[in-house]
Amino acid sequence: VRRGYPEAVYCEGKSPEQVRAIAERVGGRPDVTTIFTRADADRAQAVLAALPDAFHDPVARLLVWPPRMPEPTGELVVVACAGTSDLPVAREALLTARHLGRRAELVVDVGIAGVHRTLAKVDLLRSAGAIVVVAGMDGALPGLIAGLVSCAVVAIPTSVGYGAAFGGLAPLLTMLNACAPGVGVVNIDNGYGGGHLAAQIAAPR
Amino acid sequence: VRRGYPEAVYCEGKSPEQVRAIAERVGGRPDVTTIFTRADADRAQAVLAALPDAFHDPVARLLVWPPRMPEPTGELVVVACAGTSDLPVAREALLTARHLGRRAELVVDVGIAGVHRTLAKVDLLRSAGAIVVVAGMDGALPGLIAGLVSCAVVAIPTSVGYGAAFGGLAPLLTMLNACAPGVGVVNIDNGYGGGHLAAQIAAPR
Amino acid sequence: VRRGYPEAVYCEGKSPEQVRAIAERVGGRPDVTTIFTRADADRAQAVLAALPDAFHDPVARLLVWPPRMPEPTGELVVVACAGTSDLPVAREALLTARHLGRRAELVVDVGIAGVHRTLAKVDLLRSAGAIVVVAGMDGALPGLIAGLVSCAVVAIPTSVGYGAAFGGLAPLLTMLNACAPGVGVVNIDNGYGGGHLAAQIAAPR
Amino acid sequence: VRRGYPEAVYCEGKSPEQVRAIAERVGGRPDVTTIFTRADADRAQAVLAALPDAFHDPVARLLVWPPRMPEPTGELVVVACAGTSDLPVAREALLTARHLGRRAELVVDVGIAGVHRTLAKVDLLRSAGAIVVVAGMDGALPGLIAGLVSCAVVAIPTSVGYGAAFGGLAPLLTMLNACAPGVGVVNIDNGYGGGHLAAQIAAPR
Amino acid sequence: VRRGYPEAVYCEGKSPEQVRAIAERVGGRPDVTTIFTRADADRAQAVLAALPDAFHDPVARLLVWPPRMPEPTGELVVVACAGTSDLPVAREALLTARHLGRRAELVVDVGIAGVHRTLAKVDLLRSAGAIVVVAGMDGALPGLIAGLVSCAVVAIPTSVGYGAAFGGLAPLLTMLNACAPGVGVVNIDNGYGGGHLAAQIAAPR
Amino acid sequence: VRRGYPEAVYCEGKSPEQVRAIAERVGGRPDVTTIFTRADADRAQAVLAALPDAFHDPVARLLVWPPRMPEPTGELVVVACAGTSDLPVAREALLTARHLGRRAELVVDVGIAGVHRTLAKVDLLRSAGAIVVVAGMDGALPGLIAGLVSCAVVAIPTSVGYGAAFGGLAPLLTMLNACAPGVGVVNIDNGYGGGHLAAQIAAPR
Amino acid sequence: VRRGYPEAVYCEGKSPEQVRAIAERVGGRPDVTTIFTRADADRAQAVLAALPDAFHDPVARLLVWPPRMPEPTGELVVVACAGTSDLPVAREALLTARHLGRRAELVVDVGIAGVHRTLAKVDLLRSAGAIVVVAGMDGALPGLIAGLVSCAVVAIPTSVGYGAAFGGLAPLLTMLNACAPGVGVVNIDNGYGGGHLAAQIAAPR
Amino acid sequence: VRRGYPEAVYCEGKSPEQVRAIAERVGGRPDVTTIFTRADADRAQAVLAALPDAFHDPVARLLVWPPRMPEPTGELVVVACAGTSDLPVAREALLTARHLGRRAELVVDVGIAGVHRTLAKVDLLRSAGAIVVVAGMDGALPGLIAGLVSCAVVAIPTSVGYGAAFGGLAPLLTMLNACAPGVGVVNIDNGYGGGHLAAQIAAPR
Ligand SMILES: Nc1ncnc2c1ncn2[C@@H]1O[C@H](COP(=O)(O)O)[C@@H](O)[C@H]1O
Ligand SMILES: Nc1ncnc2c1ncn2[C@@H]1O[C@H](COP(=O)(O)O)[C@@H](O)[C@H]1O
Ligand SMILES: Nc1ncnc2c1ncn2[C@@H]1O[C@H](COP(=O)(O)O)[C@@H](O)[C@H]1O
Ligand SMILES: Nc1ncnc2c1ncn2[C@@H]1O[C@H](COP(=O)(O)O)[C@@H](O)[C@H]1O
Ligand SMILES: [Mg+2]
Ligand SMILES: [Mg+2]
Ligand SMILES: [Mg+2]
Ligand SMILES: [Mg+2]
Ligand SMILES: [Mg+2]
Ligand SMILES: [Mg+2]
Ligand SMILES: [Mg+2]
Ligand SMILES: [Mg+2]
Repeated sequence: VRRGYPEAVYCEGKSPEQVRAIAERVGGRPDVTTIFTRADADRAQAVLAALPDAFHDPVARLLVWPPRMPEPTGELVVVACAGTSDLPVAREALLTARHLGRRAELVVDVGIAGVHRTLAKVDLLRSAGAIVVVAGMDGALPGLIAGLVSCAVVAIPTSVGYGAAFGGLAPLLTMLNACAPGVGVVNIDNGYGGGHLAAQIAAPR
Repeated sequence: VRRGYPEAVYCEGKSPEQVRAIAERVGGRPDVTTIFTRADADRAQAVLAALPDAFHDPVARLLVWPPRMPEPTGELVVVACAGTSDLPVAREALLTARHLGRRAELVVDVGIAGVHRTLAKVDLLRSAGAIVVVAGMDGALPGLIAGLVSCAVVAIPTSVGYGAAFGGLAPLLTMLNACAPGVGVVNIDNGYGGGHLAAQIAAPR
Repeated sequence: VRRGYPEAVYCEGKSPEQVRAIAERVGGRPDVTTIFTRADADRAQAVLAALPDAFHDPVARLLVWPPRMPEPTGELVVVACAGTSDLPVAREALLTARHLGRRAELVVDVGIAGVHRTLAKVDLLRSAGAIVVVAGMDGALPGLIAGLVSCAVVAIPTSVGYGAAFGGLAPLLTMLNACAPGVGVVNIDNGYGGGHLAAQIAAPR
Repeated sequence: VRRGYPEAVYCEGKSPEQVRAIAERVGGRPDVTTIFTRADADRAQAVLAALPDAFHDPVARLLVWPPRMPEPTGELVVVACAGTSDLPVAREALLTARHLGRRAELVVDVGIAGVHRTLAKVDLLRSAGAIVVVAGMDGALPGLIAGLVSCAVVAIPTSVGYGAAFGGLAPLLTMLNACAPGVGVVNIDNGYGGGHLAAQIAAPR
Repeated sequence: VRRGYPEAVYCEGKSPEQVRAIAERVGGRPDVTTIFTRADADRAQAVLAALPDAFHDPVARLLVWPPRMPEPTGELVVVACAGTSDLPVAREALLTARHLGRRAELVVDVGIAGVHRTLAKVDLLRSAGAIVVVAGMDGALPGLIAGLVSCAVVAIPTSVGYGAAFGGLAPLLTMLNACAPGVGVVNIDNGYGGGHLAAQIAAPR
Repeated sequence: VRRGYPEAVYCEGKSPEQVRAIAERVGGRPDVTTIFTRADADRAQAVLAALPDAFHDPVARLLVWPPRMPEPTGELVVVACAGTSDLPVAREALLTARHLGRRAELVVDVGIAGVHRTLAKVDLLRSAGAIVVVAGMDGALPGLIAGLVSCAVVAIPTSVGYGAAFGGLAPLLTMLNACAPGVGVVNIDNGYGGGHLAAQIAAPR
Repeated sequence: VRRGYPEAVYCEGKSPEQVRAIAERVGGRPDVTTIFTRADADRAQAVLAALPDAFHDPVARLLVWPPRMPEPTGELVVVACAGTSDLPVAREALLTARHLGRRAELVVDVGIAGVHRTLAKVDLLRSAGAIVVVAGMDGALPGLIAGLVSCAVVAIPTSVGYGAAFGGLAPLLTMLNACAPGVGVVNIDNGYGGGHLAAQIAAPR
Repeated sequence: VRRGYPEAVYCEGKSPEQVRAIAERVGGRPDVTTIFTRADADRAQAVLAALPDAFHDPVARLLVWPPRMPEPTGELVVVACAGTSDLPVAREALLTARHLGRRAELVVDVGIAGVHRTLAKVDLLRSAGAIVVVAGMDGALPGLIAGLVSCAVVAIPTSVGYGAAFGGLAPLLTMLNACAPGVGVVNIDNGYGGGHLAAQIAAPR
């Protein structure tokens, strides 16, 4: 692995038994931080059976072992989203950035349909070294924010929405076509990847 | 046809000869207003050969005969777009609304990447009975505007853009997924249809 | 929020616990009308636990609090669909329009495959200030109706159908390509959005 | 080949030289009728150079040799479309049906946006043994007609339209989802295939 | 309804309660034959509760009331498919054709990967007035059969398959592009529609 | 590069000047065989200007330098297609296989709509070590042939066709869903890749 | 069936009862090897009820009867994949190749994101007569391996991944566009087909 | 505009006359750097007519005025691609990064099919503050490089390729699904956006 970054275990395609076997191997390597992503209740149980002291955030469906949080270095990462529905992905990004060693803050209740609430947060947004913007449905928020700041924006489309949202395709395309430059897009619902990329951008030099 | 609205001739799939033959028949019916849409230079020539006094706007690729503009009734229609590339579609909507009998105004240089320029136009936007918003690429502008006003917004996606804009699919999906209610979408590049719908919405009662 | 219109809470992506917490906050704001949309049995229970006197329509999966219906103003909204399968979306549109302050009527059993039943309703359709047409499968009904009336038609495609209906894509495309002008399209299954837009169009001036 | 039906040569993907070479071989087999389809001006020239007396319809982009039309047998084939833009495909279907031995008539200016013009043709439509309906954009006409008659309807989507018509995908999906049973669909712009199928359906028994 | 053909009730989008209510209304109209399609076990129970003597085929998920089968007229309808997986759709087509008044026979175990088994059935296929071919995965069977016979082939793509079959899209496209003319395509899994169309084609004249 | 196989230069995205510069560098390396693929007239001219003795097949749009053909080793490669339209791709595969050192033969005029012509070639097909099958439109031929032989079939979909062929997507999906095992698919129109893979499969051991 | 290769029964679309009936018929034909593919626990039980001594691999969801493994002939087949999630498909390919008579070995933990682990296996890869590469998400592994070896690579995309992996579409497209020649692609998750093709390629001559 | 970054004019959708008019206005604002992107020969002429001393790179289709290059600050930006075909986009990214004030270097002839050439550049890649990777066809290069370095990778898919590359869709999906974290994706062919984002990431702090 590349120096300084944790390992990751993607739990979704694996059985609880497979996850537990991996967690047991992880327990023998306390010098490396391992992040378990997309762990539902059953898979989280499997990790905790092998690593009872692991850090666990059920909303983000994320576990980390060893559970220690690194001392923050580099610049601030801000994670922004519109509301409750996008929270799992937003928290996954937030916690990933923190476990990669960044200071990270969450901003909710900003959005394109209520632009004044977004404008009210401009000072915080401008203080960041990298901003993660999580959005489903129309996916317009990253472009709005990218037009207000100078740092890079990492855009995460989510599968929140229905019908012509087509499982996240609509916000994905919106973000790839953002009118303001400065937006880099990751996979739909990929909170881990978005938080990781933001942490790399905001890393100390 | 429904009372009070012009006839329309869609020129794109027709040869100049076919367009001219239709224009000649139109010339025998001066009591009905006819709008020729999507007429490139050759097809516009064909119309003008039969109807030399027709109104012609080359940017909008639109001709109208008889050329008289009706006295405006009903409420104001505002047509908004970001800039030069969307102008042909925006002007097509503007002129259609005017020939259906509405007062109509064009607002350019508004957009999501420069949200302050949009906020500066809020008073004009709020004075409208219907707003047409034309946008390509990320297509986020209609949702932004719908969040600022109480009237209906007619959204026209355009094929302006490249790559993952997929010929207008990206802004079309964005508009269908707009977070603010109050947005009705028409076909990609359909300035005629968008202007027509706005004129119907803003019609006198 | 824009003056005169209710707030909306989209329940689908939220847990019953999250919905209940929101409903409790809503209970502290009796001056604003709040519409809860896409609430299945569990989420409806969660709303009613916090707001026992809320209006609830299980077919439309919609709740409103405070439950009072406003005095109707403006013009009539007609909501039309072919039959039983499209009823949940049609009722969602109907009730949304009513809670935004419009008089609204439902017409069922009209359709393209039985055009005479549609023609029999022309007088009612022509008395409307806005018409919502809900259709799945081929989605041809809005274009048929738009050709018969002068007011704006709000078209709602539904995911009713199978195979090449592709979850509502087929009627969505049909509606965007409607041959008659005067059709504005909203997202697949978006009864709330369609009813809202129609209520805005038919609002008093 | 199956007894009684002509051979067909699809000219579009071939060079004029290749078309001419094929036409020369055809000239040596006067007992078989050969239909050249999708022949633009250059390819038509190539056929006529080898077979100067071939029947040629430039609108349908179709040539037939030997040019004799068979005595009609079986039942009437009616070909219906909305207007000028769909004429090339409609005429291709009409002439194919005739050269396969059916009596065939063309009906234009029917459509969903002007349903009364379609209803005025019901007697002719009901006298047919098979009906070919050609439509682009929303593609709703075959479903409307299938609801009015008892015979089979062959639906041909066309690439007429723009934007969300997606080169004929929109009418194709509409036709596959037609609410009235009795509609069989062929490829986009496939006038030859549609006319052929209708001629088979209306064949004498 | 069009003379001589049954009514149809599509059960999939309806609750058992709604289906039962419809079945009760149907019981008051014994002069019209009604076909209930896509009725799973629960919905079939609902029909039988109201109409205990209804004809029921669980594989085809189809019920008919009154249960009498009409005397066959017209020509033979042959329904062909490759095997077990396509049987529900094939039987739905078979029984629909029979209840519309045609003699109908089922041929299984034919396919493109075992072309000799198909060739062994040519005499039966050539004796038909219309052939329904049901196929998933590559969907190549209708084109193979259309090349062997003179009558019309009704092609029904099925959602049988996985991966790049994309829920029936692959066989649908194959059938629309069949090299042999004489193939009319209906919606994916639409056994009812395919059997209906074949019965219309093979109707007495 | 891997031992024994030629280098390839893909000419399509390059200017004639760029192609000529590459060809000049190639001229300095006579020990390596270089294949120039997808060279239209202008690009072929550019290659020949630098390498006047290069082998050139204009139908296959392919050039090879040094022009010597290797002594054939390994097993026979058979390349099969339905006719004229697929010839450019089929010849590209044929010549690639030969320049990689295989004996290779072309079979045309086989197809699914005329299955007997295919069956007549079974002996030749069964004598091959690898078979390349090139097909557009319905793309059914590779599955038919794979059911008749024991060796591997390399399937090349082509963009020949129109409408719902969607530029080769239809035959591509058909081939991926071929009912008979033993079919490996390459990119649409990729005659070079298909011939290369077949030559690898039929290589001496 | 073609000489020397087993029969296959695809269990996914069939009920346990249908699977058991087929297994009983298979029991009467001990001279032919039959492979049951995609058998979940219930369907595996159904096979074992009729054929208690059948070979069964639950990870690969595969059963074989008679259970004897043939003596290996021909060349080595190597099956490579990145890890746990792709194992079911990889084992399905591995066991299919073995039951078709090849020696076959599995290599896990190779991948594009850890290219050095792949390079460490080059000697084994180069000793193969055919290589099966199984990959989801970005699907880049087959192209990497094809650039390192001279034999044919059979690429199997998997549905492992989420969001823009679109159920295996992303790796499928990657593999079809692999920059190195020598890659033949089979359907998404088609371990059986991939193993079969590799066994054919590596068959003795 | 955001402090320190140039303005951009997208020339593709504009007429040469419109471009010239904009260039003239730009000439009145020498304190702001303006980048003209996607300027073909005609549009470049139009810019140079108004701004004769503008910097012009015809391969990148890019002009800058005033032509002065800023003193480089921040970290190194490396732009990597496989070869000639991707050069226009790669140079557009390179020059954009330089005009935003970064030191930037171009690396060509790296790729997944020749992984050793990529490994040979690891030292240069590891010295960068941000890496732009440009790739068409399979789009696998960004994932390979992201696995070798610690800094952020900006991935630009290109429309280079044919068939199942679908105008850049294939590499776009590959990049969004890259197995290594640390990849942010921009629009297809968006060299300007990719270079801009990289320059922001590598900006001084
Ligand atoms: N630009 C346009 N976009 C969409 N529909 C149009 C346009 N112009 C005219 N139409 C419609 O096309 C029909 C006229 O078509 P045609 O008879 O072919 O000229 C009328 O129903 C018009 O409403
Ligand atoms: N059924 C619905 N479909 C689409 N948008 C909705 C729906 N219900 C509520 N909304 C919108 O969703 C937003 C509320 O989302 P939330 O804060 O997640 O409840 C508001 O902007 C509403 O306009
Ligand atoms: N299986 C089916 N697939 C497609 N359409 C059907 C099917 N069954 C019934 N229909 C059609 O659906 C309509 C009846 O719908 P409903 O009134 O909702 O039961 C009729 O027009 C039938 O022709
Ligand atoms: N017709 C073709 N289709 C696909 N790939 C090709 C083709 N011709 C050459 N290639 C591949 O493209 C690469 C050469 O590309 P280039 O360096 O741009 O000429 C080599 O890896 C070849 O294997
Ligand atoms: Mg920014
Ligand atoms: Mg609004
Ligand atoms: Mg109307
Ligand atoms: Mg009918
Ligand atoms: Mg036939
Ligand atoms: Mg085979
Ligand atoms: Mg290789
Ligand atoms: Mg990295």
